[in-house]
Amino acid sequence: MTKRRKARKIKIGNVPVGGLSPVSIQSMTNTDTRNAEATIAQIRELAFHGCEIIRVAVPDMKAIETLPEIIDGSPIPLIADIHFDWRLALASINAGVHGIRINPGNIGGKDKVKKIAEAAGNANIPIRVGANTGSLPKGFYEKLLKKYSSAENALSEALVQSALEQCGALENFGFRKIKVSLKASDVPVTVAAYRKFASRTDYPLHLGVTEAGTYKTGIVKSAVGIGSLLLDGIGDTIRVSLTAPPLEEVKAAQSILEAAGLRKTMPEIVSCPTCGRTEIDLFKLVDDVEKLISSLKAEGRKINIGKIAVMGCVVNGPGEARDAELGITGGKGKIILFKNGKASGTFSEKQGFEMLRREILKKSS
Amino acid sequence: MTKRRKARKIKIGNVPVGGLSPVSIQSMTNTDTRNAEATIAQIRELAFHGCEIIRVAVPDMKAIETLPEIIDGSPIPLIADIHFDWRLALASINAGVHGIRINPGNIGGKDKVKKIAEAAGNANIPIRVGANTGSLPKGFYEKLLKKYSSAENALSEALVQSALEQCGALENFGFRKIKVSLKASDVPVTVAAYRKFASRTDYPLHLGVTEAGTYKTGIVKSAVGIGSLLLDGIGDTIRVSLTAPPLEEVKAAQSILEAAGLRKTMPEIVSCPTCGRTEIDLFKLVDDVEKLISSLKAEGRKINIGKIAVMGCVVNGPGEARDAELGITGGKGKIILFKNGKASGTFSEKQGFEMLRREILKKSS
Repeated sequence: MTKRRKARKIKIGNVPVGGLSPVSIQSMTNTDTRNAEATIAQIRELAFHGCEIIRVAVPDMKAIETLPEIIDGSPIPLIADIHFDWRLALASINAGVHGIRINPGNIGGKDKVKKIAEAAGNANIPIRVGANTGSLPKGFYEKLLKKYSSAENALSEALVQSALEQCGALENFGFRKIKVSLKASDVPVTVAAYRKFASRTDYPLHLGVTEAGTYKTGIVKSAVGIGSLLLDGIGDTIRVSLTAPPLEEVKAAQSILEAAGLRKTMPEIVSCPTCGRTEIDLFKLVDDVEKLISSLKAEGRKINIGKIAVMGCVVNGPGEARDAELGITGGKGKIILFKNGKASGTFSEKQGFEMLRREILKKSS
Repeated sequence: MTKRRKARKIKIGNVPVGGLSPVSIQSMTNTDTRNAEATIAQIRELAFHGCEIIRVAVPDMKAIETLPEIIDGSPIPLIADIHFDWRLALASINAGVHGIRINPGNIGGKDKVKKIAEAAGNANIPIRVGANTGSLPKGFYEKLLKKYSSAENALSEALVQSALEQCGALENFGFRKIKVSLKASDVPVTVAAYRKFASRTDYPLHLGVTEAGTYKTGIVKSAVGIGSLLLDGIGDTIRVSLTAPPLEEVKAAQSILEAAGLRKTMPEIVSCPTCGRTEIDLFKLVDDVEKLISSLKAEGRKINIGKIAVMGCVVNGPGEARDAELGITGGKGKIILFKNGKASGTFSEKQGFEMLRREILKKSS
C-alpha cells in the first residue's frame, strides 16, 4: 500500500538487498563458529525454516580456519561479524564470505578501514556498518544533547550521524556496497533514527531492534519497531534479535513480514479471540487446524488455500468466513461450515472439524 | 517523541479516554456472562495484571440479570458488548454499565439507535461503534472498489466511511460521547484505515487488529498494527485480540505500550541475542534475573531500578551495561558486574549472578 523506499541495490551472495527486492530474513548462529559441523547444522535448520542470509561471529583466527567449510556447507550466503581486529576481516574475505559486518570505529584506524574496503571491493562483497546506542563514539551523544530539546531526538540523531560517518569512512576509499543498521533497544528511538536516515540517503537498510530483551517482550519490541518501519516502506533486510534460539528469530521475522503484508504463508489461519458468546471449544479447534496444516507441510504437501477462518460465534464469524475459501463458525455447540463464502452445512463440533479436514485435504497436493 | 493526536475526551467510568489521557488497556472476558462469580473472578485477575477497562458479551436477557452483580464486583469500568438486539442495550444501560459497544447497522433500525443514544445520553455513558471488515454493510466495499485503484485502499476507505456513518447515526440524535474502532485482520488495511480516520475526525480511537489468529502470529500482528499507530501518536485505548486466555491479551498490551514508549515497567531488563561470541549461559542468566524480579514483585516489593542489562559478550555489552543502573557482561566464562555505568569487579558465573542479586535486593524496598 505504502510505496517502498527504493534503496541502492547490493547483493549478499545471490540474495539481492535494496532496489525494491523482497525484504530478506537474516539470523545469526549461536554455535561456536570454530565448530563447523554444529554451525552448518544450525544454518541448514534456519535456512529450511526461511532464513535467507546468515551471520556468524568470527572472534579469532581459529574461527577463520573453519570458515571455508561452513561457507561450503551453507545453503545460504554467509556474513562474517567482526569486531576490533582488521586482520579477521581480511582473512574472512579471503576465506570467501559473502559479506562482512564491521564497525569502522573499532577496527583499528583509518588505514585498516582502507585495507578492508579495498579487499571487499576486490572480492565484490558488501560491508554492513551500523550505529548502535551501545557503541556510539565517546561524547557523540552528549554533544548533540545540547542541540536537541529531547534526549530521544538527540539519541536518534547521534545514531544517524554515527552511521553517516561510518559510511563516509568507507566511501572515502571508493567503496559503495554498503548496508546500514541503526539500533537502539528503545523502539521509538530506533524507528526515528531509521526514518531520518532513510529520508537522507539511498543506502539499503538492515532493520533490527538491538538487545530486545526476553522472548515475549523481545518479539513485541521487534514487531513494533521493524513492523512500523516496514509499513512505512522502509527496510530491505531484517533480523529479529531475541534472547532465544535463532530459529525463533526466523519464525518471528516471518510473522512480522506477513503482518506487514510483505509475505504470504499459505494458508493464512484467521481466528477470533473468544468471548462470552463463544459456545464451542475454539482454542482446541484452532489448535487442531494448525496441527493438521503443520503435519501436511511436514509431509511436503502443498496446500492450495489462501485463507481459513475459524470463528467462535455468529457476530463476526459469517462475515470473516465468507471472506475465506474455507471457514467454520461456531454457535450453540454446533459448527457451520463455509466453502468459498457459502454456508454448506451445520455439524456437531467433531463432525465439523472432520468436514473441514476433508476440504483441506481435497485442496492439498 | 511523536506528538500525540489530541482526541475528544470521554470517560469510561473513572477512566479518561482521549484528550491526551494515558492510553488505557482493555480486554474482554471469555467466561459466560450469566455466571457472575466466574466473570468477576476473571475481571479481578485481569485488573490485577493491568487491565483498566473490561468488556463483557451480553448475548441475552439472562446475562442482563447478572450484570449488576458483575458491575458491583468489578474493580474496573465495564462495557457491555451488544449485537442485534436493541433491548439488550437499553437493559445494560439500566443495569449500570459504564459504556456500551454496538453496531448501529445491526441493532434494529434508526428508531432503535435513537432510543439507545437517548438512554446512553441520559446515563452519561459513551458508546463505542466500530467498522469491521467482517461486518461491512452489503455492497459498501464493492462500490468503493470501482473508485480506488487497489483493493487495500478501497477496503480501508470502506472501513472509514462505514465508521463515519455509524458516528453520524448517533450524532444525528445529539449523542457525541463516541469511541471508534476500525478493524481488519489485515494489518496494513487496519493501519491505513485508522490513519485516515484519525486525520479526518477528533473521535477517540480504540485500537485493535481483529481476528488476529493464533497466539504467536496474533501477538506479532497486534504489535505491528497497534504499535505502529501508537508510534504515530494515534490511539487512546487498546485491546489486543488473541485466540488465547484474556490474561495473555493484557500482558501483550502492556508489552506493546512499553515498546511504543508509552509505559515503563520497572526495571526494564535488556539482554542481547546470543551469538558465537557468547561464552556464558546467557539464556539461564536472563531467566534467573527475570525470576528474581517476578518473585520480588509477587512479594509486593518495589524495585527502584530503571534498567538492568544482561549481556553476553564484550562487543555491545559494556556500552549497554554502562547505560543501565545495573549490568552484567559475560566473557570467557567470567562475568563483569557494572554499577551505575562503572565496572565493579569480575566474577565466576555463579558469583556474578549472586552479586547482581545482592545489588537488586539493596535497591528493593
